[in-house]
Amino acid sequence: MKISIERGTLLKAVGQAQSVVERRNTIPILANVLIEADGDTVTFRATDLDIEVVDKVPAMIERAGSTTVSAVTLHEIVRKLPDGALVALSDDGTAGRLTVEAGRSNFSLATLPKEDFPVMASSEYSSNFAAPAPVLRRLFDKSKFAISTEETRYYLNGVYMHVADAEGGKVLRCVATDGHRLARIDADLPDGAAEMPGVIVPRKTVGELRKLLDDDDTTIAVSVSETKVRFATPEITLTSKVIDGTFPDYTRVIPQNNTRKLELDAAEFAKAVDRVATVSSERSRAVKLSLDEDRLVLSVNAPDAGAAEEELAVAYGDERLEIGFNAKYLLEIASQVDRENAVFMFNSSGDPTLMREGNDPSAVYVVMPMRV
Amino acid sequence: MKISIERGTLLKAVGQAQSVVERRNTIPILANVLIEADGDTVTFRATDLDIEVVDKVPAMIERAGSTTVSAVTLHEIVRKLPDGALVALSDDGTAGRLTVEAGRSNFSLATLPKEDFPVMASSEYSSNFAAPAPVLRRLFDKSKFAISTEETRYYLNGVYMHVADAEGGKVLRCVATDGHRLARIDADLPDGAAEMPGVIVPRKTVGELRKLLDDDDTTIAVSVSETKVRFATPEITLTSKVIDGTFPDYTRVIPQNNTRKLELDAAEFAKAVDRVATVSSERSRAVKLSLDEDRLVLSVNAPDAGAAEEELAVAYGDERLEIGFNAKYLLEIASQVDRENAVFMFNSSGDPTLMREGNDPSAVYVVMPMRV
Repeated sequence: MKISIERGTLLKAVGQAQSVVERRNTIPILANVLIEADGDTVTFRATDLDIEVVDKVPAMIERAGSTTVSAVTLHEIVRKLPDGALVALSDDGTAGRLTVEAGRSNFSLATLPKEDFPVMASSEYSSNFAAPAPVLRRLFDKSKFAISTEETRYYLNGVYMHVADAEGGKVLRCVATDGHRLARIDADLPDGAAEMPGVIVPRKTVGELRKLLDDDDTTIAVSVSETKVRFATPEITLTSKVIDGTFPDYTRVIPQNNTRKLELDAAEFAKAVDRVATVSSERSRAVKLSLDEDRLVLSVNAPDAGAAEEELAVAYGDERLEIGFNAKYLLEIASQVDRENAVFMFNSSGDPTLMREGNDPSAVYVVMPMRV
Repeated sequence: MKISIERGTLLKAVGQAQSVVERRNTIPILANVLIEADGDTVTFRATDLDIEVVDKVPAMIERAGSTTVSAVTLHEIVRKLPDGALVALSDDGTAGRLTVEAGRSNFSLATLPKEDFPVMASSEYSSNFAAPAPVLRRLFDKSKFAISTEETRYYLNGVYMHVADAEGGKVLRCVATDGHRLARIDADLPDGAAEMPGVIVPRKTVGELRKLLDDDDTTIAVSVSETKVRFATPEITLTSKVIDGTFPDYTRVIPQNNTRKLELDAAEFAKAVDRVATVSSERSRAVKLSLDEDRLVLSVNAPDAGAAEEELAVAYGDERLEIGFNAKYLLEIASQVDRENAVFMFNSSGDPTLMREGNDPSAVYVVMPMRV
């Protein structure tokens, strides 16, 4: 193999690869990126056995071939090379070394045989559809904060992407919950997605996917099977196993009959919650909301440290209500609101509370109260 | 006590205080800042028993008095208040609470009696002088990287500030070393400093002092005794115990007879060292410098990961030399050079190497070689 490639292009491809490889590996080759040069493209492939990312980039190929080399080391080297440099990668196939040259720098890196590199088995995908990057970005960005980190509830360690019935018909829906709060985000159903099986996309895959979604003009090809999901741009293909479990019936958790409506400015609310939470102890960051005729008082009472109180002018016309929440959950939910004011729908101080962005039913959040 | 104070002024004073208090305290009152209001100034005082910082700021005082309150909590609250807010602090003296009010926010914080607050014993200072902030900034900024972190060699855990003889006469000198590298920085001797005893200023004090030195136009009043050092601006007084130990005779470490001179661009050199060090294992980041007629080859050989080499055009006219250094030490020393090219003076591959900024004898660095 002997190729020349522009530093910026190489940095992006190797960056994506090194992000997928696990830092602590018992299998040495999983730390490596597989580089395959053929025709006028070079393919960079990395995997942690659950996720595989393949990046195809243009390069000048003098001699086709392939090898594997440490993704982290190659990324570090390329990152430190000067902007605009032309990088030559060559491998004579016998010495077990890859030579990296740029300007007056010369590196020789240990390689492992490409035959040992685990290539993810290809699957039959039962469903294929296309979605604009901003649509997928919204679905995952607004739901991922609620992903559970409890390993025992592995079926909550991801975002449940599925087809659901909403008021206006079928939608593409992402749901995440950790049992304390829940996010349910809907988008128009893309053509060809109707028969898609519901899949739980793991947290790490959601993180890697995010890098494919930055460009507003990109269309993402999505393929789904019972066991795998694939997201592809023209250059990058991200394939991931899905979580083998059943996502709980979240619909029962979403309150239907909450009638007490509070409307407020989400940004002002978040700042006030953050301020009053300052005095609470780390463990139980409970904030009490006291509602009365267009008036919200946020308060925290921490016996050791002190107390805090702040008043906000809000729209609320129902009877007096006192309810407590974890400050962190309120802050995270309030930070999702980017279009309009936040609308909270309460029932009683013991029942789950619903929050949505203005009157938009396509983004709904649920948060469990705390006793205060 | 009842006072009103502008949020920005309060934030700066409390910020300095919370930075001095230790995060883990067995003595509760050491987590607090002592607030004393009298006349038209409020004094904020914090200590960790080794360092004391006192900040005097103007405020509207309705009722004089004093109390102590958690420095970290008060700082967090003030930080989160809106810019430009007027903050009212009041304390009725009996309830053991300090009320903090701003806009519609209201906090009530637990206090501890001011009688329990440890005030650092005042000392007689044998030497008092004034120095412009930029002079002290240079002395400490360029030396502190070499401070040792080994607790067993406590006498190296600071910067040795003393009066020394240089070529042009007496100078104010800061020296730090960890046994592997050394920095020796000189400044013109200020009036009144000639009789100053040499003191080892602890690492934490050096860090706190840095915050007083940002403004180029400030003059710092320095007071020194055998056991304490004090740095003061018109608003802030930082008093610190000095390390009770003897700084070793560093002059023997500074090579006098190194004759092989290498001159190079420090920024280019640092980038190249950083690049070739990428392939070395974490533990022994040894970089080999091979010198020959106006040519420097940097190389690293890591049996597992690979090898790296980079060539630099330099000014070197002496005979061939190979010498190895810890990459981190070379990077740190090279990053001190901000005025001219770096000049290295070598003797042999086993002897300490001297580095200075151009031909300026007032900033000298020494680094021990490594076997490569």
